Amino acid sequence: MAPGDLILTPSWSWHDHGNETGETVVWMDGLDIPLIQSLEAMFFQFYTAPQVPASRPPNASKQLHGHAHLSPTWVKEKPQSSPLLLYSWDQTREALSALRENDGSPFDGVALEYRHPQTGGPVMPTMACWVQLLRPGQQTKAHRHTGSAVYNVVHGTGSTIIDGQRFNWSKGDIIAIPPWALHEHLNASSTEDAVLFSIQDTPVLEALGLYYEKALEEKDGHQEVTSVFAAT
Amino acid sequence: MAPGDLILTPSWSWHDHGNETGETVVWMDGLDIPLIQSLEAMFFQFYTAPQVPASRPPNASKQLHGHAHLSPTWVKEKPQSSPLLLYSWDQTREALSALRENDGSPFDGVALEYRHPQTGGPVMPTMACWVQLLRPGQQTKAHRHTGSAVYNVVHGTGSTIIDGQRFNWSKGDIIAIPPWALHEHLNASSTEDAVLFSIQDTPVLEALGLYYEKALEEKDGHQEVTSVFAAT
Amino acid sequence: MAPGDLILTPSWSWHDHGNETGETVVWMDGLDIPLIQSLEAMFFQFYTAPQVPASRPPNASKQLHGHAHLSPTWVKEKPQSSPLLLYSWDQTREALSALRENDGSPFDGVALEYRHPQTGGPVMPTMACWVQLLRPGQQTKAHRHTGSAVYNVVHGTGSTIIDGQRFNWSKGDIIAIPPWALHEHLNASSTEDAVLFSIQDTPVLEALGLYYEKALEEKDGHQEVTSVFAAT
Amino acid sequence: MAPGDLILTPSWSWHDHGNETGETVVWMDGLDIPLIQSLEAMFFQFYTAPQVPASRPPNASKQLHGHAHLSPTWVKEKPQSSPLLLYSWDQTREALSALRENDGSPFDGVALEYRHPQTGGPVMPTMACWVQLLRPGQQTKAHRHTGSAVYNVVHGTGSTIIDGQRFNWSKGDIIAIPPWALHEHLNASSTEDAVLFSIQDTPVLEALGLYYEKALEEKDGHQEVTSVFAAT
Repeated sequence: MAPGDLILTPSWSWHDHGNETGETVVWMDGLDIPLIQSLEAMFFQFYTAPQVPASRPPNASKQLHGHAHLSPTWVKEKPQSSPLLLYSWDQTREALSALRENDGSPFDGVALEYRHPQTGGPVMPTMACWVQLLRPGQQTKAHRHTGSAVYNVVHGTGSTIIDGQRFNWSKGDIIAIPPWALHEHLNASSTEDAVLFSIQDTPVLEALGLYYEKALEEKDGHQEVTSVFAAT
Repeated sequence: MAPGDLILTPSWSWHDHGNETGETVVWMDGLDIPLIQSLEAMFFQFYTAPQVPASRPPNASKQLHGHAHLSPTWVKEKPQSSPLLLYSWDQTREALSALRENDGSPFDGVALEYRHPQTGGPVMPTMACWVQLLRPGQQTKAHRHTGSAVYNVVHGTGSTIIDGQRFNWSKGDIIAIPPWALHEHLNASSTEDAVLFSIQDTPVLEALGLYYEKALEEKDGHQEVTSVFAAT
Repeated sequence: MAPGDLILTPSWSWHDHGNETGETVVWMDGLDIPLIQSLEAMFFQFYTAPQVPASRPPNASKQLHGHAHLSPTWVKEKPQSSPLLLYSWDQTREALSALRENDGSPFDGVALEYRHPQTGGPVMPTMACWVQLLRPGQQTKAHRHTGSAVYNVVHGTGSTIIDGQRFNWSKGDIIAIPPWALHEHLNASSTEDAVLFSIQDTPVLEALGLYYEKALEEKDGHQEVTSVFAAT
Repeated sequence: MAPGDLILTPSWSWHDHGNETGETVVWMDGLDIPLIQSLEAMFFQFYTAPQVPASRPPNASKQLHGHAHLSPTWVKEKPQSSPLLLYSWDQTREALSALRENDGSPFDGVALEYRHPQTGGPVMPTMACWVQLLRPGQQTKAHRHTGSAVYNVVHGTGSTIIDGQRFNWSKGDIIAIPPWALHEHLNASSTEDAVLFSIQDTPVLEALGLYYEKALEEKDGHQEVTSVFAAT
């Protein structure tokens, strides 16, 4: 696990977390537990030892499934969650860089979704992962949609305006966008790109026929800022 | 177009072919015309000029869709054929190299399929494209399946045994495997890898519920060679 | 609406409820509101008048879509919820009667699911509707599954044992089976069939990859009854 | 088998044909053999006796799957071809009668497609079956599409105009419409309905992304009749 990497732990896989260095490591853990608990479909089991012995070589999933648009024909299983467990920052940075000048989405900038290599679908049935780049000074337009998102700032400084409230952010910050809240993003720097990672529950809304989206039409698509969030 | 690249021309796209160098260029063109003609679903139109003016920058499809497991969220259309029109040899070689020591398929070696980036399906509704690596001395086992394939030798020397007849091949050769023919591949070199590219009509057979596959069970899965093909 | 009919009100359809007779009418209303609210995807609008004027003749959906295995080719839309809004008891009784002697499911007896006529899927993306017949004296085996169900007794007398507690029922009663609860059904009559209607959230669990099912293996598949539910 | 019934013989099912009466029986047999042979995916096997012993009671498939919009929950297999092997004329006539006054399709009248009860798809992966009613004097408009059709006249007298040639028909006649041929239907009677059954290869064209359709725009959608077909 290196900075910027996305690592998946699909449901019902033995897993443990560890830090083999002498330094602190921090990452954002994205879980669908509130949904699964409200559906009372939660199962949980402890392994018999503190650590699960590795049954495959390090990064075996990347060796097998990590190749752009080329898939192993001898692998017949298509698990619900992506069989690719590591999405390296190298590839992500390269993709963002290649698309940097693209118009992208008016609401999200150059927003890319991590994909299940075998189906082109979301990485998990309940959660999609996104990475998005905002060019220096870029301000997106406001929209709202069912489904919520939790953001992690990978790089840069800027702000997200949510239902009229401005949340200023910089590297490492976490921002949550509730369902149906109007939101727009701003890269506050005039020289540096901003990069945001996010986890979205869009796959749930789409699977149940509940995904709706609406752009703000007034004021050229921008909200009036009526307050600024201040962490205590 | 560089050696080893795969380029798609999806149906109903204006296209022309050209060579801007002073040297001969040769490539294998894979067409589904016999099938489309037998279905009487063939449409054809000449452009008003010898060359279609480019409406997008060179390799725009690769810039947009060519990123491993990361897709542009603002692109909503999912065409039947892959929107990625160039699969570069660089990426293919890298993938084959990473999987070189993998067991792969007993019948096809390290066989990878080129994929539609949005669906994980075949690159076209009627044709799948494969690339496969045979390690030095590797001989695959024989099987047969509905669906036919046309192979192009990208690298190396070896032979393919089809219904008991041996076809020796080297770089640039084209070999056709008819439906339901027993076939197995052999890399004749003890030091060099062999790489085969192929076009398969498996998607047609699968879409119509007609795909069947059967391994040769006798003689440890190998055919007796009863003749050797000789080009006149 | 006649006794035993199933009527759907798909999301975002204007609808009102009424009783044009002088007698009391009672029906079971099945809503997915708890789920939709927990996803904060609830939208609600009052019509400008107490009653929505009918825009189609009575039972137009049945005239168009209510024919067994024959669908109108000129209708191109496939809504998420079934376009057939009335499933008449006549047809249901006929189907139950035809399958009365069938082994059916060991856990549910002759259990039939109401189907979306265009897709064969559940009647709604979030709710499936079932009707099941238990022959005189029939006792099903116990199993548990993610997903919950709400039952309405259409005909007969019997009991359902849920996690060791017996719930006795007769016509008009409503029984709820929570997620992952062990349950089995018993028709207490030795002469009359029992018929149960139910609404299940199985489509939600399946869409999210969370459906699991497990039969009770001990004691020939039957639970020990440790208490009997008594309404106060 | 009674007049007007549709009976399916899915691929790789043992079957024989017989007539237990002293009278001649005639039916139209619809086969996809030309397609399967051109794909070289044809398999054929004789049974060891002239007649296959029945392994299920007569019309078991209808008892199990023949109920409008109600499906047996304990049947988990979903075969490619419809598991319902008999579509009785009773139900067909009832459906045509119920929809008799419907506008239907401008090109095909009240045209219904027989459906796979579990998927809502065509009855077979390669062939769709249709039944259509033309009211007295009704003349449809002309269109053309990829895919071909073979018609059988169930009831009535009329004509079909194919690429400017008129084919007059009455009960029992068979008419073939080639791919991309302009065609329109006319019920020549001023008092009797006409009913046409047809087998279409639309599922093949759709599965391969080759289905196109085009209405005749000139002359209010009707062709000029330039010749009349005469059987010798």
